[in-house]
Order: sequence, then C-alpha cells, then structure tokens
Amino acid sequence: MQHLALTVGLAAAALLGLHGEATAQQRKDRPLVIQSQGSFFVGGEVKKGPAPTGATAAFGAGDITVNQMYVQYQIPPGGDKHRPVVMVHGCCLSSKTWETTPDGRMGWGEYFVRKGRPVYLADQVSRARSGFDPSVISAVKAGTAPASSLPNIIAASHQVAWTIFRFGPSYPKAFPDGQFPVEAVDELYKQMIPDLNALLPNPNPTWTQMAALARQLRGAVLMGHSESGFFPQQAALIDGTGIRGLITIEAPCPEDLTAAQISTLARTPTLVMFGDHLEDVPVVVLSWKKTYEACNAYVQKVHAAGGDAQMMYLPQMGIKGNSHMLMQDKNNLRLADLILDWIDQHVEKR
Amino acid sequence: MQHLALTVGLAAAALLGLHGEATAQQRKDRPLVIQSQGSFFVGGEVKKGPAPTGATAAFGAGDITVNQMYVQYQIPPGGDKHRPVVMVHGCCLSSKTWETTPDGRMGWGEYFVRKGRPVYLADQVSRARSGFDPSVISAVKAGTAPASSLPNIIAASHQVAWTIFRFGPSYPKAFPDGQFPVEAVDELYKQMIPDLNALLPNPNPTWTQMAALARQLRGAVLMGHSESGFFPQQAALIDGTGIRGLITIEAPCPEDLTAAQISTLARTPTLVMFGDHLEDVPVVVLSWKKTYEACNAYVQKVHAAGGDAQMMYLPQMGIKGNSHMLMQDKNNLRLADLILDWIDQHVEKR
Repeated sequence: MQHLALTVGLAAAALLGLHGEATAQQRKDRPLVIQSQGSFFVGGEVKKGPAPTGATAAFGAGDITVNQMYVQYQIPPGGDKHRPVVMVHGCCLSSKTWETTPDGRMGWGEYFVRKGRPVYLADQVSRARSGFDPSVISAVKAGTAPASSLPNIIAASHQVAWTIFRFGPSYPKAFPDGQFPVEAVDELYKQMIPDLNALLPNPNPTWTQMAALARQLRGAVLMGHSESGFFPQQAALIDGTGIRGLITIEAPCPEDLTAAQISTLARTPTLVMFGDHLEDVPVVVLSWKKTYEACNAYVQKVHAAGGDAQMMYLPQMGIKGNSHMLMQDKNNLRLADLILDWIDQHVEKR
Repeated sequence: MQHLALTVGLAAAALLGLHGEATAQQRKDRPLVIQSQGSFFVGGEVKKGPAPTGATAAFGAGDITVNQMYVQYQIPPGGDKHRPVVMVHGCCLSSKTWETTPDGRMGWGEYFVRKGRPVYLADQVSRARSGFDPSVISAVKAGTAPASSLPNIIAASHQVAWTIFRFGPSYPKAFPDGQFPVEAVDELYKQMIPDLNALLPNPNPTWTQMAALARQLRGAVLMGHSESGFFPQQAALIDGTGIRGLITIEAPCPEDLTAAQISTLARTPTLVMFGDHLEDVPVVVLSWKKTYEACNAYVQKVHAAGGDAQMMYLPQMGIKGNSHMLMQDKNNLRLADLILDWIDQHVEKR
C-alpha cells in the first residue's frame, strides 16, 4: 500500500506538473500524461484545381488548397518550461518515423514528450497527411500535358534502402554490431511511401512552413532527418525569428553556402549527428563519407563564424553500430538523451 | 488546497484506472491520461517496384511494399474494459478527420479515448501515411504505359465540397442553422488531399486490413464515414470474426446486396447516422435523399433478417442543422455521446 501511495503521489505530481525537472519527467513504463494534443496545418495556398476527368468528372472544377503542412502535437504538463521540438521526417517516409519503432519500441516523439517537451511532428508538404498537388498528374491523364511533365517519384526499394540506411554491407546481410532492428525491417518497408517532392516549387514550402511554425510557437527547436536534415537551416535562412535550435540528423550539408548565409545560421545553436559504418556500404545515391565530411566542414564554418555548432559523430563517442535510422535503432533512447542534453545545455541554458 | 487535493485524487484515480466507469472517464478539460499509444501497419504485400527514372535513377530497382494500412492508436487506462473503436475517414481526407476540428475543438478520436475507449485511427490504403503504389505513374513517366492508365484522382474542390458536405445551399452561402463551423472552412480545405483510390485492386485492401485489424484486436467496433461508410460492412463480408459493431456515418449503402450477404451482416449490430439538409443541396455526385433512403432500406433488410440495426436520422431525433462532417460539427461531442451510448447498449451489453 505504501508503494501504491508513492505511485499515486508521483503520478499526480507528473500530472499536475507540480515538481521540477527530475520528477516531472514521466518514466516510460508509466501512463503518459498529456496536457493537450491535436493537429493543425501551417500555411497553404488556394489555386484553381485540375478539371476532374472520367469517373470523377461529376466533382466539377474549382479551387483546391496546396502546400499546407500537417502537424500533430502533444504537450505534457509543464511543457511551457521547455522549448517545443519540431521533428520532420526524411525521404520516402512520414512522421511515422518518430513513432513506434519497427520492432515495437517507443519512438523519439513520445520519449521527448515524456521528457517534458512539447513535440510537433510535421508531415512534409507533398507527403502523407499534408497531401500533394495533383494538378500535373491530372493534366497528363486529361491529355493536356505531356507524360514527361510527371514527377520523378522516389519509391526507395527494400534492396536500396538496406544499404543506403546502412543496415549492412549488402542486401540482406546485416552488420554484426548493427543497432537497427533488422528482424523487423519489413515494418520499416511499410513506412516507406512514395516521395513526390519533385512536384514542389522552390523554395520548398516545407521550409517556409517550418519557419512559420517556429514563429507561431514563439521559439522552437527544429530537427530534420536525411532528406529533411538541412531543412531547419533552410527554414532559418528564410526566417529565423522563431528558431532556437537547428538539429541535423544524418543528412547532406550544402558546400556552397555563402559567408552571409553561414553568418545567419551561426546565430542559432546547431547540432549534427551521424551514426556508424559510413564507409562500409556501397556508394549509391550518395557517399556517406563525403556527406559526413561536408557536414563536418559546415560545423567548422559555423564555429569559425562565432556560432555554437557541434558534430556528434557517434563512433567517435564510443557509440557503435548505428544505422541511418538513429531514431529507430535499438539504442534510440540513449541517442535521444544526447539530443535532450544538448538542447538543455545549448538552447535552454543559453 | 482542498480543491487541489480533490483534483490530485481524481487525476490519480483516472491515471491508475482504479475506479469504475464513472470516474474512469476523463473530463475534457483535464489532462489526458494514456496507458499506451503508438502506430503500426496492418497487411502489405511485396511487389517489384517501378524502375526509377531521371533524377531518381540512382535509386535503382527492387521490391516495394504496397497495400499496407497505417494505424495510430491511443488506449486509456482501463481501456481493456471496452471494445476498441476503429475509425476510417472518407474521400479526399485522412485520419485528420477525427482529430482537432477545423475551428480547434476536440475531435472524436480524443473524445472517445477520454470516454475510456481504445481508439484506432486508420489512414485508408493509398492515402496519407499508408502510402500508395506509384508503379503506374512511374510507368507513364518512363513511357512504358499510356497516359490513359493514370488514375482518376479525386481532388474535391472548395466549391464542390461546400454543397456535397452540406454546409449550405450554394457556395459560399451557409445554412442559417448549420452546425458546421463555416468560419473555419479553410482549415477543412487543408485536410482535403488527393484521393488515389482509383489505383486500388478489388477488393479494396482497406476492407481486408480492417477485417484483419478487428481480428488482431480480438473484437472491435468499425466505423466508417462517407466514402468509407460502408467499409465496416465490406470488411465483415470478407471476415467478420473480429467485428463486433458496424457504424456507418453519412455514406452510400449498396442496394444490390444478396440475401446471403444481408444474413452475414445481420450477425453484427449496426448503426447508421445521417445529418440534416439532405434535400437542400444540389444533386452533385450523389443525391443525399436517395443515399439516405438506400441506407434506410438496408437497415430494414438487416432488421428483417433478425439483425440489430438502427438508423439515427438526426433531424427526426430533433437534432437539426448537421452537415456531412458530423465529427467536426459544433455539436460533435453530443453526436459522439449518441454513438458511445449505442455501443454500450448494442455491443457491450449484448
């Protein structure tokens, strides 16, 4: 009964956010307490939609909304004591990236909430619940545009994903020390959905909406992964007003940034994280070694410009075997703790 | 301080699920307590993917997974005392349907959880986080299939949605007694995303996955809306093993069901719900009056076959002004209570 009383006490404390950091953090084996949750869209523009054809002709024509970004959020009790964290998924994926891992463990989304952070998961514009602009596809169907105007859809195959995501040296061979739960890789393959980013205008509306979201939240940390890994910086180059931290997980870093751009980016604390086995997979689409080196050079440039920038190259820190899917690897919560500590030290105590 | 103690007591009771029905129900102005949450996929088949073209050629070819259904769930403490409820959205929409309403109120998803129900929100196969099979589009792009093989994408326009969803007699005129929050209709338009169901094989994999999900949950209530309104029945005709209730919200009911099919469907309690103004909008795509009449005839047939079937035609119950988007209307929680009571009486007390 004493144990029950203690449990009730702790739970109530967490629920009401009466205590400080240590007790307000929700243990992952306890029920999750949410102060508020929901979803909304950022941005979106109205345009004349395609004329429906064939079986859908009865729908008639009119306006449609495009370029809106869907965002799903959870705020724990006391969440206003921390900076919100916005997580944006990579190529051929959706916000599912941050949820339950392929082998059924807790993802970074819920874990960050349990660590007291308001979490915002955004589906990239043209993906998942954000929808996409169907105009070109419908125009080709209607014969008013050539087939060549269709987008190059990226549908990453199981075989290509295996090595690009660095699960092993060749499909389906796994690294002996690999952290990705390869026994559940089929569940990752189900997350991989067609990437229609080739439909997007420039600048990518996801960048614009991320900047707008950070502003709307009156200060947020932006985190991107892979395809979206540099989106936080792209957002900051558009409007950094609301952006308090830039987190780049396993992503290409551009090598042609101007001094002015570096100077702008140097205003915001920056964290870059890379996993293991960068040189142990074939070079397909990109070289992970060169990708890492470009990000390292970027971190150095930001540092040289007076910024606070840090590279966490996990093998150098003694953390071995991580794949490209850090948020789903078996040690994902340990890596989350590194990021949370970095936010505490470099963003919140600033 | 007495108030605080009471709050702590109630919150802890809800958190730990120590109490019965009355206190376990979470008030909507309180933090939400979740026993467990997450996401997963149901089904999915492996097929040879399209050869990447142009800028994506480097991705190479290989296998992709298609026809999987993405499901996001929340289970409140004590949720095992109730049947899970699976909600499936309609045409040109995603599971966003059941979340925060366009004007920022609580949706049915969270409300059902607060009422003690495990809730499963599924994105239809070929929509949102479930992804779609890009093969045909990529084949047309590559010149190996004719443009005519492209799907008829449904991209419902603002103007068409206004009257089909029965917000008013003509765009942008609203019904004076309308329950839809028309001042926030732009936020609904952002939820409307391209419908690629024309890509799907027959039977629709969403039906198959809904049946599989109900079985996996060892008994669930299936609820569909509009395009998916009869999906619960389609799932039951494939495999009713796990299906404990069929809820059809504002949807076409087929008129050509065989006696054997009616007999199968009559094994499971059935609820059909329709809103107001069925005859007050132009006939575009469908006649709401005929749609309602077909569902009424369906309910009568199930009843005649010895089944437990009920039509809730809201205006006949004195509830006026409801649109097609019942779960987003201003009285959405009142309508949710009608459904919850029906589940209690017809499914759980059975």
